[in-house]
Amino acid sequence: MEIKRPLLLISNDDGYQSKGIRQLVEMVSGYGDIIVCAPEDARSGFSCAFSATTPLRLTRRPSFHLPPSTFHSLQVWSCNGTPVDCVKMALAEICPRKPDMVIGGINHGDNASVNAHYSGTMGVTLEGCMKYIPSVAFSLCDHRDDADFEPLRPYIKSFTARVLAEGLPKGVCLNVNFPLLEDGSAFKGVKVCRMSYGTWGSEVTKCHHPRGYDYWWMVGHYHNDEPEAEDTDRWALDHDYVAITPTQIDLTAYSAIDQLSEWFKGNHL
Amino acid sequence: MEIKRPLLLISNDDGYQSKGIRQLVEMVSGYGDIIVCAPEDARSGFSCAFSATTPLRLTRRPSFHLPPSTFHSLQVWSCNGTPVDCVKMALAEICPRKPDMVIGGINHGDNASVNAHYSGTMGVTLEGCMKYIPSVAFSLCDHRDDADFEPLRPYIKSFTARVLAEGLPKGVCLNVNFPLLEDGSAFKGVKVCRMSYGTWGSEVTKCHHPRGYDYWWMVGHYHNDEPEAEDTDRWALDHDYVAITPTQIDLTAYSAIDQLSEWFKGNHL
Repeated sequence: MEIKRPLLLISNDDGYQSKGIRQLVEMVSGYGDIIVCAPEDARSGFSCAFSATTPLRLTRRPSFHLPPSTFHSLQVWSCNGTPVDCVKMALAEICPRKPDMVIGGINHGDNASVNAHYSGTMGVTLEGCMKYIPSVAFSLCDHRDDADFEPLRPYIKSFTARVLAEGLPKGVCLNVNFPLLEDGSAFKGVKVCRMSYGTWGSEVTKCHHPRGYDYWWMVGHYHNDEPEAEDTDRWALDHDYVAITPTQIDLTAYSAIDQLSEWFKGNHL
Repeated sequence: MEIKRPLLLISNDDGYQSKGIRQLVEMVSGYGDIIVCAPEDARSGFSCAFSATTPLRLTRRPSFHLPPSTFHSLQVWSCNGTPVDCVKMALAEICPRKPDMVIGGINHGDNASVNAHYSGTMGVTLEGCMKYIPSVAFSLCDHRDDADFEPLRPYIKSFTARVLAEGLPKGVCLNVNFPLLEDGSAFKGVKVCRMSYGTWGSEVTKCHHPRGYDYWWMVGHYHNDEPEAEDTDRWALDHDYVAITPTQIDLTAYSAIDQLSEWFKGNHL
């Protein structure tokens, strides 16, 4: 009897050439066959966007370097679209069977708090979850191209093995964020958190073009709206814990249903 | 004493020239001053994407036609970015004060079920909600450029007045979808719903370019995964009810926190 090996579909929003996705593939290469389908270059802030009007293309890329002991297969593809396009294209055109897991990351920069809404890495993960595949996003609070992902290795291996073995509840994926450690320090542990409320401010910077018109760059500063709340992902990261935020595709505000039903009782306008 | 009139910020993902946004502005023009800041052309499927690497520009556009009795002010702007960029730019650079309400729509096409994740109209509304402004999205199950929005008028006026008067709970916005009626029929009423589970399938169509390479268009078919569930938005629309789905920015899957905490008890990997 043929042993069916797990299939892992991996994407990100930093592009297939980024260090984060290469490190991730290397870390989880012992757990199954891997298909990478990732954007051709950086697609940060692309959320769950897909390309409704752009023709999509796929390009096969040279395989990443893997440890010689790895006996699983690896295919690397890039797509000219968004992170969500990459997942949809891989599922429709590349994967020989339904993946056992979708992984987004490792993102260069955190996706905690409301950043989960904007993140293309979370787009990858939500897309997997919407296809009822156990899905996880990994992000590190370090935007640098050469960020050091090595301290994450045992955690990423453990979380991946656990999710492959046990699955996740229907409609639930994991948003895993790692704090940036000071040299020589260690993660204090793992906290399962809620998403914290936070707000971006001073989001645009006006510039003046040599041709005489104004234009703006989207930048901004994040403000934690509940810094004292110890059950949030932002608190965990600020205190050197690995933050796991279970995240759901059902956006319904159940707590508001009764109040709103009262508004429209008897169908009165 | 100066009476401060409500300020409504309106955007969409179909572009500032679409019929849906023009009709919306006309319908709610009696409720306050209005600022429109919308994409230059269609940005469907842009979700909560923002432009991290593209310089943004604003262009003042001629005002829409309003009924002569309207004494409130109207400014119309377009932005070259995403729906979320439009909201961020308007808040930072156009609005003289914090808007009392953000409205997305009227979208040509529905945003019920998981489509809320992909929708740029919902991006507008979630962005307003993330800024703690009462926010609502209006969508009609009709993709046509010349869709008839007139039957929505009393509902849109009523919902807008209600939200302006009473606000919405923190972190909660409304995703309002209208069914497409057969000629001469009427909405059966209003249902406050949960978001239904559904899946997109057959999402890409392969084509062959004259130059010899393959490319793909993102299309696909929506499948309702729980057609019998009478408490869902999709059920309401399929049975001619107006569907109001209270939607929250907190994505935390609270129901999964205990199970996951068990996994990581004692910080064991």
